[in-house]
Amino acid sequence: MFTERIYNFSAGPSMLPEEVLQKAASELLNYGGTGTSVMEMSHRSKNFLAIFEETKHLLKSVLNVPDSHEILFLQGGASMQFSMIPLNLIGKTGKADYAITGNFSKLAVKEGKRYGDIHIAADTEDENNTYIPRQGDLSLSSDASYFHYCANNTIYGTEWDYVPETGDVPIVSDMSSNILSKSIDVAKYGIIYAGAQKNMAPAGLTAVIIDKALIGQEMAHTPTMLSYKTQVEKDSMYNTPPTYNIYMLGLVLKWIKAKGGLAGMANYNAEKAKILYDYLDESALFKGCARPEARSLMNVTFVTGDPELDASFAKEAEARGLSNLKGHRNVGGMRASIYNAMPMEGLQTLVAFMKEFEAKHR
Amino acid sequence: MFTERIYNFSAGPSMLPEEVLQKAASELLNYGGTGTSVMEMSHRSKNFLAIFEETKHLLKSVLNVPDSHEILFLQGGASMQFSMIPLNLIGKTGKADYAITGNFSKLAVKEGKRYGDIHIAADTEDENNTYIPRQGDLSLSSDASYFHYCANNTIYGTEWDYVPETGDVPIVSDMSSNILSKSIDVAKYGIIYAGAQKNMAPAGLTAVIIDKALIGQEMAHTPTMLSYKTQVEKDSMYNTPPTYNIYMLGLVLKWIKAKGGLAGMANYNAEKAKILYDYLDESALFKGCARPEARSLMNVTFVTGDPELDASFAKEAEARGLSNLKGHRNVGGMRASIYNAMPMEGLQTLVAFMKEFEAKHR
Repeated sequence: MFTERIYNFSAGPSMLPEEVLQKAASELLNYGGTGTSVMEMSHRSKNFLAIFEETKHLLKSVLNVPDSHEILFLQGGASMQFSMIPLNLIGKTGKADYAITGNFSKLAVKEGKRYGDIHIAADTEDENNTYIPRQGDLSLSSDASYFHYCANNTIYGTEWDYVPETGDVPIVSDMSSNILSKSIDVAKYGIIYAGAQKNMAPAGLTAVIIDKALIGQEMAHTPTMLSYKTQVEKDSMYNTPPTYNIYMLGLVLKWIKAKGGLAGMANYNAEKAKILYDYLDESALFKGCARPEARSLMNVTFVTGDPELDASFAKEAEARGLSNLKGHRNVGGMRASIYNAMPMEGLQTLVAFMKEFEAKHR
Repeated sequence: MFTERIYNFSAGPSMLPEEVLQKAASELLNYGGTGTSVMEMSHRSKNFLAIFEETKHLLKSVLNVPDSHEILFLQGGASMQFSMIPLNLIGKTGKADYAITGNFSKLAVKEGKRYGDIHIAADTEDENNTYIPRQGDLSLSSDASYFHYCANNTIYGTEWDYVPETGDVPIVSDMSSNILSKSIDVAKYGIIYAGAQKNMAPAGLTAVIIDKALIGQEMAHTPTMLSYKTQVEKDSMYNTPPTYNIYMLGLVLKWIKAKGGLAGMANYNAEKAKILYDYLDESALFKGCARPEARSLMNVTFVTGDPELDASFAKEAEARGLSNLKGHRNVGGMRASIYNAMPMEGLQTLVAFMKEFEAKHR
């Protein structure tokens, strides 16, 4: 029973900024003198459309999205995009390149294969996905309809530190777990997509940023709701979008702006991650899993080397309000997900506890 | 600027019970001593799974869902079901029967035609969708994979007052705008589906109740996320479900139980609708649009006969905190959506204002 808020290291859904939750709670029954909750507003009402436009504008400005690209607010998560991407894009040549660097990029490949010829541009499973392939390691096809990669791998704690060069082949990137954590050059991408439940908003919203040049090539059997063309033409309002999640994203974006935008976020995230990685590098008990040059600033994976000790650690941490530190069932060990909303104090408290645990168990 | 909550007659998203919003606001930052918001909980965490199971159990008990049927919590709204239904079911014979009684059933037909041979069992457009076809008017095919109808037509204010007899052909019903408003015999249906944003929860959740005998016949190109089989096997957790919406549905279901379950809802809804329909029947200015025997208890459509006067009425009502009374753009006039969460006082206040307006304009 916690009377205070805990530090929640969940990989997603995950922490939201406390200020955002406070604001949401304060206007839950009556938003801005409208006499209704945002949850109750018709998606076509003036009040909601103002929220929708503001949120879209905020995302455009915070991420610096060029006019060539359209922002979509969809549903279904990254897994729905695993289908939507080939359904809409692979028809161009029938082929696509995918890099496998973890669980979700592998699922994307599995789904992609149902719609076309998928070529594996890289696969890091040979070393348990502890590294990110370098540009020279990528086997790229000039006739691929697109190149797909997952920018941050939550389960393995690795993150791409560069944008691959693919010539004329559009890049499609799953940024579910690192979007809004740092500045990116959106113009380099054909499609960026992200399930909202890590750095954006509560689960149920999927943000897609798409180069408008890519729309209009969907397969004949593509469900209407899964056509990017339909969604672009209808401005994400072919039917009722997840209105409250869009409102929450707006609050999160205002919080990011107040914290110095993505430059501010990037600095804060680097500082936070450094606290934990520095300790992992000096600890005699705990050891980071990802290769140093591939380390994610969002998900930090580590082990003691003894599965029983790992389990004790996660359990004792939980009781202290350091929650969800157990690693993914595929890999075991520990994982600390430290997205934008995780405060610096969360890292300090975690490392202090790790030191205490190490002193007891070394 | 309203300091009090208004009466929101929106067709959806629409009002939620005030007690539900209060409860949600009170535990937004710390749910039940967990130290986290429900919005921040991993969908696979013990805390969230307890909410998920409780909500599913509540829906099963409130709607009296038999064990033959599975409850799914999906995304994408009714429009996504318009694709998912033929993708999963029409393969059996390649054919399906659809009744057209309004805008959404027509959209369902349009999408269905992309996947198979759609036979129109009835079409009420001949009389501007002001009536519901009787059993004897339905042209049914014995070799249909299913029969589809929309149980309540929000735009036209009509509602089916019976469940069609279709022999061995499974019935698929869009209950987006009347689910949980009264008791139904779930066993009679192959699939019941509903976007949550009218009687269930905030937009972004779609409830599907499916006879398990119908799963496993999806077309080869069906996206994994759109396979009922996948969703049943994974208990709606193939990927992250819309967690907060599911929690909100749980709160709404507890509210319904406290109000006497669906029997209590049905009585309350009938009483509410009677206030408005009785007045429409006696008014010299206002006139109901739907034929009396087809009247919906959820959406009441009416006109003065003068579009300018209709516009004045909606505008003046808005200023009094009687909001969103303007009819759908397809039909004009007025529409009062009076779902479960609309209190009796909303109807009394509306009719009092209508009488005042009539006195001024007769």
